[in-house]
Amino acid sequence: MSSSPIAIVAGVGPGTGSSVARRFAKEYPVVLLARKPESFEKLAKEINDQGGKAVGISADVSNQESIQRAFREIEQHFPGAHAAAAVFNAAGGMVRKEFLTVTLDEFSSGWEVSQKGGFLFAQQALPLLLKARGTSSKFNPTLVFTGATAGVKANAQMATFASSNFAKRALAISLAKEFGPQGIHVAWANIDGPIDIPGRQDYRAKLAEEAKINPDDIAEAYWTLHVQSKRCFTNEIDIRTNIEKW
Amino acid sequence: MSSSPIAIVAGVGPGTGSSVARRFAKEYPVVLLARKPESFEKLAKEINDQGGKAVGISADVSNQESIQRAFREIEQHFPGAHAAAAVFNAAGGMVRKEFLTVTLDEFSSGWEVSQKGGFLFAQQALPLLLKARGTSSKFNPTLVFTGATAGVKANAQMATFASSNFAKRALAISLAKEFGPQGIHVAWANIDGPIDIPGRQDYRAKLAEEAKINPDDIAEAYWTLHVQSKRCFTNEIDIRTNIEKW
Amino acid sequence: MSSSPIAIVAGVGPGTGSSVARRFAKEYPVVLLARKPESFEKLAKEINDQGGKAVGISADVSNQESIQRAFREIEQHFPGAHAAAAVFNAAGGMVRKEFLTVTLDEFSSGWEVSQKGGFLFAQQALPLLLKARGTSSKFNPTLVFTGATAGVKANAQMATFASSNFAKRALAISLAKEFGPQGIHVAWANIDGPIDIPGRQDYRAKLAEEAKINPDDIAEAYWTLHVQSKRCFTNEIDIRTNIEKW
Amino acid sequence: MSSSPIAIVAGVGPGTGSSVARRFAKEYPVVLLARKPESFEKLAKEINDQGGKAVGISADVSNQESIQRAFREIEQHFPGAHAAAAVFNAAGGMVRKEFLTVTLDEFSSGWEVSQKGGFLFAQQALPLLLKARGTSSKFNPTLVFTGATAGVKANAQMATFASSNFAKRALAISLAKEFGPQGIHVAWANIDGPIDIPGRQDYRAKLAEEAKINPDDIAEAYWTLHVQSKRCFTNEIDIRTNIEKW
Repeated sequence: MSSSPIAIVAGVGPGTGSSVARRFAKEYPVVLLARKPESFEKLAKEINDQGGKAVGISADVSNQESIQRAFREIEQHFPGAHAAAAVFNAAGGMVRKEFLTVTLDEFSSGWEVSQKGGFLFAQQALPLLLKARGTSSKFNPTLVFTGATAGVKANAQMATFASSNFAKRALAISLAKEFGPQGIHVAWANIDGPIDIPGRQDYRAKLAEEAKINPDDIAEAYWTLHVQSKRCFTNEIDIRTNIEKW
Repeated sequence: MSSSPIAIVAGVGPGTGSSVARRFAKEYPVVLLARKPESFEKLAKEINDQGGKAVGISADVSNQESIQRAFREIEQHFPGAHAAAAVFNAAGGMVRKEFLTVTLDEFSSGWEVSQKGGFLFAQQALPLLLKARGTSSKFNPTLVFTGATAGVKANAQMATFASSNFAKRALAISLAKEFGPQGIHVAWANIDGPIDIPGRQDYRAKLAEEAKINPDDIAEAYWTLHVQSKRCFTNEIDIRTNIEKW
Repeated sequence: MSSSPIAIVAGVGPGTGSSVARRFAKEYPVVLLARKPESFEKLAKEINDQGGKAVGISADVSNQESIQRAFREIEQHFPGAHAAAAVFNAAGGMVRKEFLTVTLDEFSSGWEVSQKGGFLFAQQALPLLLKARGTSSKFNPTLVFTGATAGVKANAQMATFASSNFAKRALAISLAKEFGPQGIHVAWANIDGPIDIPGRQDYRAKLAEEAKINPDDIAEAYWTLHVQSKRCFTNEIDIRTNIEKW
Repeated sequence: MSSSPIAIVAGVGPGTGSSVARRFAKEYPVVLLARKPESFEKLAKEINDQGGKAVGISADVSNQESIQRAFREIEQHFPGAHAAAAVFNAAGGMVRKEFLTVTLDEFSSGWEVSQKGGFLFAQQALPLLLKARGTSSKFNPTLVFTGATAGVKANAQMATFASSNFAKRALAISLAKEFGPQGIHVAWANIDGPIDIPGRQDYRAKLAEEAKINPDDIAEAYWTLHVQSKRCFTNEIDIRTNIEKW
């Protein structure tokens, strides 16, 4: 296994995914997974231009064949690939509406991305993380799931997002308990509040900067999880601005 | 609306489902939903023979058409039907195995029954519960979700069951918050331990009776939820034997 | 042991304590504990006039000698006393103010009543509950701790009330685990919202009746805990009105 | 205010306290608080010998006068003192025994140190942390409470330790919510498992090193909390070895 360990980020968009990819690219070649190439193309170029190494691969995390194909591509790019870190940053089902008006398709969208996606990604990434143990990687192979407050709190009209986020959190914790003893650091992050996503023209645009979580800081928090010693794993963290109500 | 309110139990098997059906049949005509007729036939006969009223209907809770058809049948049996109580007692994905050996079908089985099933059932049952407000029903229309410890605790090798149970719990809590102010009592029950299911020849057969939760007692607990006043709703309960470790 | 089992309620005031005493007085002679006689005199008379039996005893639950003296008085009133039920309904430290202005006396008031009081009461009551096992009592000896949302949620400016309520909850859960296998049913109740206390002239006076939890209903909920079978113990319940936000 | 910011560690012993002091001494002068001088003398010498600055002060955190005197001493050592960080690392009431054999003194010992101590320390430290805002300190003033699993889980025979740890956690969270918007980063750490304390001859001596949390790693985790941006505060972390069961 001559290759250096890589980092894989699923769900690369303009916010947390990009920041995480940039942060881990300082240390590892990074694989950027997103459904649409436009989600990763600029970022891959930016990282490669700045002396890092990034490979973007189109993948629909909710589709088994698509995610398997993406990991075969990873193997082609990085023969004998092993992963120092894998971050599952995708979420679906961000629906807020009266329950009786939610369609099955809408409700399923939470499952498709947050749960099935998390399952499929973890099944592909964990073997690469397990391979990285005892290699040149200085740190423990790390699998982080980006979560949301909806993973611990189920509000009215939020059945779709809450149920799929609760489920994603359960997936992360179960994996932390199963793979921790095998040397893999699995963690779940409760991103509790709006994220400051550049160019996003939604309700967040009107919020003061200080009310929005800085995605670069989230990335740094994930990095600090990654460098934790085996004798000091954090498996759950909450992240919020200092002015967030909780 | 001349008919009396009914109770609907989804997931009627030899354990909790049957006990709940018998308990609510003391007060209401009951609809028994199960995939296979053999799951409800004997029970329906027993209830009808003893002076109650029970109607068994085949339904796959994880199939939208099937569950919609079942509720049309309910309307035929009980024209202008309104529901005093609805109990979602189905669960899927009881898989305990190493994560990397779990198939997508296995993982999906938790979603299919516990989540999609819970969603589809709630969407059909809630309109009937809402119709029951202010009618002859003495008590607040009640929707109970049968849960398990896996809804609050995600153990190793239990990613499938835990994630779908966490999700079911989130669904229940979100509905409790949305429909409580509308007069519907939604509750989630954490059945924390093995249930004493007659004739079940699995690991439970070897346990002492006192180590197994009595399903008739679960049914009584659900009934006490049903009769709670609007000014005193319990939305989450745990249930275990006195010797359970937790 | 010729006497019938008794019920003991600590923290009898115009709200939950009185309602619980009245409810349990339907079945058992009740002992009413409160610091000031005026808190229980009328209630004792009411219960005795209506054919029940009530004995009021002055006791400061936060004072070891006082609580020990009270239990010696119980023994004098009911020689060979054994208890079917004991309810700890006292709480202290209801302070809401900026942390840096909280005095040590104020902060200690939470400890004194909710924790030390709960500890002292439980140490006196548990032996009487243990004695009641296998006697004429139909139900499992039951120890209920009245809690509040502050036992699960620590808000700003609520450090005093929250910390003492978190602690009371931990006490209840630890006792539930230790004494459950010994046949005692210990439970903690999260009373999540304002209680409808007759004659109380505070912020609650302005709330609509439907926004306030009915203490008689709380009492009924405690009774339903008391009558649960050993094979179906509920150890934690939440209680709120249907319109409470949570 | 010409002085540089300091760090204050309460509860300096051979384990976490010393490691935290060493870590923060790399950046700040540190004040070491412990009841007995032998708890901090060697450590203070070690830090001072290695080019850092440490001042040891005897203080009983559970005694208001003692803790106030200690902070007056801090002011003498560091006129105009302001604190970049304060760590409350003391805990009391580590009692595991049958509840009915716990003495009031034993039960109180949890309150005295973990709660009253935490309260008194926070009331003295917060004004110094507030003074540090906008000064030369690069990072947000930080107050960390060292907690234990007993702060989230109340086991049988652990009523004393669990209740005082639940309370300490509630104190930390309430302060996080009150002082976060004022620019202070308050966090609670669940140290979930045995700590590797040099020379400790108890049950931990027999455990494999890998089963014990490294206190230097805990200190590093606290440091990473300290350097978090205001737009990315973590208020609760869990810390355990990779082989811990949880």
